[in-house]
Amino acid sequence: MENLFWIGFVGALIAALFAWMQAKRVLSYSEGSERMQKIAASIRSGANAYLKQQYTTVFKVFVVVFIILLAIAFGSGGKMLSKYTPFAFVTGGVFSMLAGFIGMKIATSSNARTAQAASESLNKGLRVAFSSGSVMGFTVVGLGMLDITMWYYLLRYVFGVADPVSLGNIMVMNGMGASFMALFARVGGGIYTKAADVGADLVGKVEAGIPEDDPRNPATIADNVGDNVGDVAGMGADLYESYVGSILATFALGAVGGYGFNGMLLPMALSVCGIICSILGSFLVKTKENATQESLLKSLRTGTYTAAVLAAVLAAPLTYFILGSWGVYIAILCGLVGGCAIGYFTEYYTSDTYKPTQELAAASETGSATIIIGGISLGLKSTLTSILIVAAAVLVSYFAAGGSTVIVDEAGAFTEAFNRGLYGIGIAGVGMLSTLGITLATDAYGPVADNAGGIAEMSGLPEEVRGRTDALDSLGNTTAATGKGFAIGSASLTALALLVSYVNIVQENTTETLNFTLTSPTVLVGMFIGAMLTFVFSAFTMSAVQKAAQSIVVEVRRQFKEIAGIMDYKADPDYASCVSLCTRGALHEMVAPALLAIVVPIATGLVLGPTGVVGLLGGVSVTGFAMAVFMSNAGGAWDNAKKYIESGHHGGKGSEQHKAAVVGDTVGDPFKDTSGPSLNILIKLCSTVSIVFSGLILAFNLMNLL
Amino acid sequence: MENLFWIGFVGALIAALFAWMQAKRVLSYSEGSERMQKIAASIRSGANAYLKQQYTTVFKVFVVVFIILLAIAFGSGGKMLSKYTPFAFVTGGVFSMLAGFIGMKIATSSNARTAQAASESLNKGLRVAFSSGSVMGFTVVGLGMLDITMWYYLLRYVFGVADPVSLGNIMVMNGMGASFMALFARVGGGIYTKAADVGADLVGKVEAGIPEDDPRNPATIADNVGDNVGDVAGMGADLYESYVGSILATFALGAVGGYGFNGMLLPMALSVCGIICSILGSFLVKTKENATQESLLKSLRTGTYTAAVLAAVLAAPLTYFILGSWGVYIAILCGLVGGCAIGYFTEYYTSDTYKPTQELAAASETGSATIIIGGISLGLKSTLTSILIVAAAVLVSYFAAGGSTVIVDEAGAFTEAFNRGLYGIGIAGVGMLSTLGITLATDAYGPVADNAGGIAEMSGLPEEVRGRTDALDSLGNTTAATGKGFAIGSASLTALALLVSYVNIVQENTTETLNFTLTSPTVLVGMFIGAMLTFVFSAFTMSAVQKAAQSIVVEVRRQFKEIAGIMDYKADPDYASCVSLCTRGALHEMVAPALLAIVVPIATGLVLGPTGVVGLLGGVSVTGFAMAVFMSNAGGAWDNAKKYIESGHHGGKGSEQHKAAVVGDTVGDPFKDTSGPSLNILIKLCSTVSIVFSGLILAFNLMNLL
Repeated sequence: MENLFWIGFVGALIAALFAWMQAKRVLSYSEGSERMQKIAASIRSGANAYLKQQYTTVFKVFVVVFIILLAIAFGSGGKMLSKYTPFAFVTGGVFSMLAGFIGMKIATSSNARTAQAASESLNKGLRVAFSSGSVMGFTVVGLGMLDITMWYYLLRYVFGVADPVSLGNIMVMNGMGASFMALFARVGGGIYTKAADVGADLVGKVEAGIPEDDPRNPATIADNVGDNVGDVAGMGADLYESYVGSILATFALGAVGGYGFNGMLLPMALSVCGIICSILGSFLVKTKENATQESLLKSLRTGTYTAAVLAAVLAAPLTYFILGSWGVYIAILCGLVGGCAIGYFTEYYTSDTYKPTQELAAASETGSATIIIGGISLGLKSTLTSILIVAAAVLVSYFAAGGSTVIVDEAGAFTEAFNRGLYGIGIAGVGMLSTLGITLATDAYGPVADNAGGIAEMSGLPEEVRGRTDALDSLGNTTAATGKGFAIGSASLTALALLVSYVNIVQENTTETLNFTLTSPTVLVGMFIGAMLTFVFSAFTMSAVQKAAQSIVVEVRRQFKEIAGIMDYKADPDYASCVSLCTRGALHEMVAPALLAIVVPIATGLVLGPTGVVGLLGGVSVTGFAMAVFMSNAGGAWDNAKKYIESGHHGGKGSEQHKAAVVGDTVGDPFKDTSGPSLNILIKLCSTVSIVFSGLILAFNLMNLL
Repeated sequence: MENLFWIGFVGALIAALFAWMQAKRVLSYSEGSERMQKIAASIRSGANAYLKQQYTTVFKVFVVVFIILLAIAFGSGGKMLSKYTPFAFVTGGVFSMLAGFIGMKIATSSNARTAQAASESLNKGLRVAFSSGSVMGFTVVGLGMLDITMWYYLLRYVFGVADPVSLGNIMVMNGMGASFMALFARVGGGIYTKAADVGADLVGKVEAGIPEDDPRNPATIADNVGDNVGDVAGMGADLYESYVGSILATFALGAVGGYGFNGMLLPMALSVCGIICSILGSFLVKTKENATQESLLKSLRTGTYTAAVLAAVLAAPLTYFILGSWGVYIAILCGLVGGCAIGYFTEYYTSDTYKPTQELAAASETGSATIIIGGISLGLKSTLTSILIVAAAVLVSYFAAGGSTVIVDEAGAFTEAFNRGLYGIGIAGVGMLSTLGITLATDAYGPVADNAGGIAEMSGLPEEVRGRTDALDSLGNTTAATGKGFAIGSASLTALALLVSYVNIVQENTTETLNFTLTSPTVLVGMFIGAMLTFVFSAFTMSAVQKAAQSIVVEVRRQFKEIAGIMDYKADPDYASCVSLCTRGALHEMVAPALLAIVVPIATGLVLGPTGVVGLLGGVSVTGFAMAVFMSNAGGAWDNAKKYIESGHHGGKGSEQHKAAVVGDTVGDPFKDTSGPSLNILIKLCSTVSIVFSGLILAFNLMNLL
């Protein structure tokens, strides 16, 4: 059975072929007028320039970490760290980078084409934007399959790691490179996009009173570049990391849970099956010409839900065939259903068709202070449903997959039943992400539509075209929120699986029985530090946006003052200066938060030992999840409350209420697009860093002296 | 040695005598002109009316809980719950209520007197306000000593509980009543005061452009009433709960740690010693006539630091004499030093003499959105130092007091060394609060000075008097922030001690070895629910303020519009309607969050069993601490950034920057005075509720069926 692992290559191939077809299709469309081509080219070159510099910075950090890993692995003769890990670290990073880069390439080639197609018909616009999103979605899953399958064959057949437990323990460390790259991409891209957005809005919309994407706004190109480097390249790297991470986390647990190599085959088979279902689903995404907002959403939903239902049906024989266990199948269903439930409640809290966001919009009647208070309390409240869903998914998948209430045997080792239960939690995460190909396509289509709207506005296309791109864009807000829900939901499950792998690996390498009881002072102190890490990481990313945005505000104000004739279209603003300010700001500010995720777990380990690290991982997982949900939903609700007012409620555009809502939206920008979505990566990076450095920490820590 | 427990009564007596002397002294001052007396009387009657209604509502809830406790205790023949607990629940609630009520009584009698004294000299104003604060401070500690000593003698000699472990386990449950009352007082008072404040500011200051405390503002009396019911009565109940809770938490651990009754004598002796040191320190609080802000702060600090140093010196022979352990003395020092360190960093993050708040003020240059983002990131960042201080205090006091890295013996029970170490953590919390008499006096003096300023403004006292009361008030902001630091810092230590008591009590009542390993799914799910509780509780309290404030805004706008002549002083506004709106709003909104703290731990226990409860307590302690620090410091910094601008920076009063800063301040109001300071009570209430209901949960929970 386990010899079927080659299906990973098949999955990668299918995904690549489909992505290639979609790319060809997109590129067959026209890029429109010369002015449109020129704008698209500026956005493309800005995005390329930023990514080039970002990769240069990241490259340096990767070299340093690679050398440290090499030193530990070869210095200890492979005892403290497998000799393969430094190399897997590099491939993970490169593949994660590629996922984002390819997505960005196609997105910047699709934006003008989408605008042009939308000028022909709404359905054409939708198809081009969605095809562009599909390229990204299937590139991510294809690269993920390739990376995992490649390393599996290398380790097992070339380097001869024949024992499934050892193989699983090595593979689980392979996620670190992807997570590290993803954190840089998310944080750097997130800072870039929101600095540009906030800066453009604060001076352009609020002070000068010109519309969004107005060509007179010097920050407008930077804003559109930001959509690509943040919402596309950043998100691609992020979800690549989530996808690969969820699969690898189950590998180690399947082996110790007694499933051997079959425990690794199942998540791969499930993912390949998900790729095929996603392709089938994506054929259903189309719309009629006079489509409303609802029918557009329905067409995307038809695609994603069909894929999910197909995957749910096919997973049953698959699971039974491979593991002979219906319990594990229930765990997979938990993941699929949990993901949809999180998506639904994300929409409930953030969409203006429901009460919470409508009430938030009403808070604008008493000014910006009350809308801020209202948004914060809405976001905090929204953690209720997300956490209850995750709690239910964890418990049901654990017990269904054979978990037991007795988790430690007399010798202090975790029981096989416990590991089987945890394997259930891990595979629920894989299930949640199995149809990532199509969910990511619906998500990545958003920024393309957003850019298309910008290009339509800047190149003076007719009002009705802008109307169509606006319809596409506004839908993108909803799918983006849902996408974040999937990323953080799966992260919570993956993080728990990684936490247990950490403990298993530590226990294997020591004869001491370590005490991971929650009441232990080192565990408790670790939990405090984990919470601190979440809070301080969020602070760093928020203040990075604030600082970079302030520099944009100053620059835009300067241009309005010094370049005569901008306002009456007689002179062009200096777009490039804003692009380069954002680039510098993002690169300068992204390093500190990313390093936190590596330095804090290691430092905690050196002082508190492995029990402190377990506390930290528990603390950061729990607070990181709650904080991510809070931030994403508060930000989404503010954004849509503003849109709700713009659509004519509470005084409409230009009213005092609208101004108050713009303040809310601006505060929400770093919440929902910088700090919030980075937290799911932080959680997993902390876990894999802890696993990779576990040998070092076990040998050297202050608690050994007591 | 243990026969010396009667010193608790001596401490109570000394504190009561000193409070009585200070009260007599305050009341010997004149209340000033007829107009001043009239305003003071309105504030007094508003505060009385609110408290009366609050106590009526709370009484009903207490009756219900009392009956439930009676039913469990007597229904199970004392097996699931001690028969004394229902009664201790009532006394704890009554004493906590009394602490707040007496403080409020004296504060509302001192405000006009302070204004009058300030019109004579700054030093006189300071002395009256500080004496009023002292009444509250010493009432709180005196009542605390009385409650604990009384129950100790009742249980040990009247009801014959001769075993220290049993006595400790019964006493530790006595904190529940105080915590429950405190939560109502803090949340209800916090909603009241901030609804009034936000409402008054939004319409008065921002829309109508009239100064703070202007008699034309219909919400101004409600605002002043709020200071008394929230910042005085609420804070008194809160700190009563902290004080008693920290002492009781050490009782149980001292007994299981092998110290017997002497382990209970030490925290009592330490507290009595702290009372005497506080009295000595309070004699040093005075100032010269031409005092600057700095010299005023110095005079308060001389008092508190002298008291702390004296207590630190006296604690050494005391600890050695009672327990014969220098290690426990080091733990006490950890508490005292940790408290001062948290106080210092609170000031660093929130005072406008330091960089963080100055930079926050500078963010006003780019509008209200950036000052909000800046304040949130400042608050999140400030968790760094607080958590590192608590982490260091926990580790040092644990190991110094004899804690060991081996925490569980072969039979699965916690070792004596572990309990001794935890006793160290608990006593560090007692040490931190030992000089509460004087720290609370400096804290409670603030609202009195604030009210005095209001009365000076409303009764048209000369400009220089308002200048003096402003100086006193602004100092109060700093001491209030420090006071919150102490409350939350001690809460984190007390919560850890309670957590271990919970596990001890559960283990004692079952033959099963329960597994509290952090990696257990029930523990992890419990942690998630703990984090959710923190977030949702904060959401409830924030949105309560928002809703109540919105109703005030509507009412004030109505009065400005409908009552002709308010603006040119020809007609009096209807103060009473705002007072009653606030009362209704606060009472209506306070019940849900308070009930959360009781319902969630019990529900979690019924589903997940004791291991889930331990996860919940860990999760709520850690996230509650971080969230409280974040909210208190962000709120404090916004407030002072606004004051910094008002003192002439960044455009000064009335500028666009100032308007942006007012938005920040308004958002910060519920952060720092409603949600933030309630969290320390939430943490401890969850713990004591879990302990009280542990017998019930052990017998009935879903996990028993698996």
